[in-house]
Amino acid sequence: MRFKTKEKILLAHGSGGRLTHELVKNLFIRKFSNKILNKLDDSAVIKTKNGQIAFTTDSYVVDPIEFPGGDMGRIAICGTVNDLAVKGAKPLAISAGFIMEEGFEIKTLERIVSSMKKAAKEAGVEIVTGDTKVVERGKADKIFINTSGIGFIEPKIFLSPSKIRKGDSIIVNGNIADHGITVMNARNNLGFKGNIRSDGAPLNGLIKKILSSCKHIRCIRDLTRGGLGTSLNEIAGSSKLSMLINQKDIPISPSAESASALLGLDPLYVANEGKIVLFVKKPEEKKVLNLMKSHKYGRKAKIIGTVLKEKKPQVRMKTLMGGERIVMMLEGDQLPRIC
Amino acid sequence: MRFKTKEKILLAHGSGGRLTHELVKNLFIRKFSNKILNKLDDSAVIKTKNGQIAFTTDSYVVDPIEFPGGDMGRIAICGTVNDLAVKGAKPLAISAGFIMEEGFEIKTLERIVSSMKKAAKEAGVEIVTGDTKVVERGKADKIFINTSGIGFIEPKIFLSPSKIRKGDSIIVNGNIADHGITVMNARNNLGFKGNIRSDGAPLNGLIKKILSSCKHIRCIRDLTRGGLGTSLNEIAGSSKLSMLINQKDIPISPSAESASALLGLDPLYVANEGKIVLFVKKPEEKKVLNLMKSHKYGRKAKIIGTVLKEKKPQVRMKTLMGGERIVMMLEGDQLPRIC
Repeated sequence: MRFKTKEKILLAHGSGGRLTHELVKNLFIRKFSNKILNKLDDSAVIKTKNGQIAFTTDSYVVDPIEFPGGDMGRIAICGTVNDLAVKGAKPLAISAGFIMEEGFEIKTLERIVSSMKKAAKEAGVEIVTGDTKVVERGKADKIFINTSGIGFIEPKIFLSPSKIRKGDSIIVNGNIADHGITVMNARNNLGFKGNIRSDGAPLNGLIKKILSSCKHIRCIRDLTRGGLGTSLNEIAGSSKLSMLINQKDIPISPSAESASALLGLDPLYVANEGKIVLFVKKPEEKKVLNLMKSHKYGRKAKIIGTVLKEKKPQVRMKTLMGGERIVMMLEGDQLPRIC
Repeated sequence: MRFKTKEKILLAHGSGGRLTHELVKNLFIRKFSNKILNKLDDSAVIKTKNGQIAFTTDSYVVDPIEFPGGDMGRIAICGTVNDLAVKGAKPLAISAGFIMEEGFEIKTLERIVSSMKKAAKEAGVEIVTGDTKVVERGKADKIFINTSGIGFIEPKIFLSPSKIRKGDSIIVNGNIADHGITVMNARNNLGFKGNIRSDGAPLNGLIKKILSSCKHIRCIRDLTRGGLGTSLNEIAGSSKLSMLINQKDIPISPSAESASALLGLDPLYVANEGKIVLFVKKPEEKKVLNLMKSHKYGRKAKIIGTVLKEKKPQVRMKTLMGGERIVMMLEGDQLPRIC
């Protein structure tokens, strides 16, 4: 597919859903095509004579920049740390690129930078290089941050959708949808109570704990833009396998559930900043679950489903009503600028 | 120095000059402080058991996004390749993060992406990972691109201002100020003739050629934001040595010189995207000069000055009139959004 003359970028091109995928496939992959990029993993994995290096980048445009449980700085560090960690890499160093609007308050910048420092410290990684650009008032929205990260992957570790097999168990490390609901609540002053907070957290500690004692972890992915629903669809597409998940087992707080219902949002597509989905060979599912539950970022972990081999790979959910429905990739953009 | 309440980000905080340095020192270095970041080199150099890794990041906000001789895509690749190359690293991989404004034309994006591909191919490096974000119309100016890059540095290579010694020669690889004048001309439709074009170019080939046959290269730096004047001041500050340059030897095209004069700009502070300053032990200056002149990105290379040891390190220029003047670091921002 080629783009038409006068075709424009839409908000949904940044949603992480179907239009993002089309843009990536039809433009970025078409032009830049190479073996590493084409895998579209959370991190690129580069094999060198000096070892396997994971390399990842993300820009952050979340609005508002500060919200309960975190801010743009915290998710900018956690997001990049997590993109490295889900490939089994130990985060080695982070870069930080700031684009700011003329007139942005330096005190706010100080809070964001302090928050980055705190998150980096928790993750055990340092910010080693950076860049600062300023554009005229009205040419950017306060501040945008890019973080990139690098890390080494031990030779024996290889996590990929291609390793997933029929019968594998699907596990998430806790309540979904908190980040997206929190940001939407803060952006629009919706006033939802119930203490919903962003879940932004560096998960490298949790993942390291699991990888160092489990032998059959197939693949891990973090559930950011597009949420659990989109990630499972991406993995189904890459692995050519189907996923059957159980609605009753998907962890979600009552507050996030009722806020989603009121707003007409499907929590399956709401962004998270401290959640992963993990695929493991079934005999090891309990071990992984217990390791997660013993870690502060995995207390509410649940086994949510299983992998099937079917003619046409798809994601399906057993609903609370007992039926089954297909879970599609996110269409449009239900929550722009969530990260 | 701490920032005052209500102090705001100014355009000059993004100039690469004095205010950028103050912001970096008083905020980013103060908060993130670590041995690698504190060096404020073009690339961070990380020593690992698997070798020395160079890691760098830059965001690009140049306005307009397309101009004679290049576009945002070309300089986004060349800038990051050059930041790696000046530390003696072989560029291994590049990331690309796009922040776009809703309504941005996809055809323009295609041209920018093609240009990135072309520059990456010339530099012999691949774009292995990326990210796409979209913000609402009016919340960004068309497109901003972040590129980060990594590369390995051979164990024997160590380029740093700390290696510069009294008597070293200072060499630039060609005409200064073309990029900045071109962008300003294009932005404001000034209509200067004389074929001034952006000099955006990947210099890793040129630098590799020099490093592979010269033994006494001390330090190389690329002359982007803030231009030659600011870079020399940074290096004087780090090396605690003075620089004496000769105005008559600084290569500049007659077109760029007259455009600068008309606009009241000092070409010493105008940004370049394909120029480096190189410090070499004097006996090797001719060899470096000849190697440069035999490469397409060094044909107009010149020895522009020498390093002095003085009580108070500073940058001075012998003017065409025969006098000497101090070259300060860039104050304010003579050309915002030049890269």
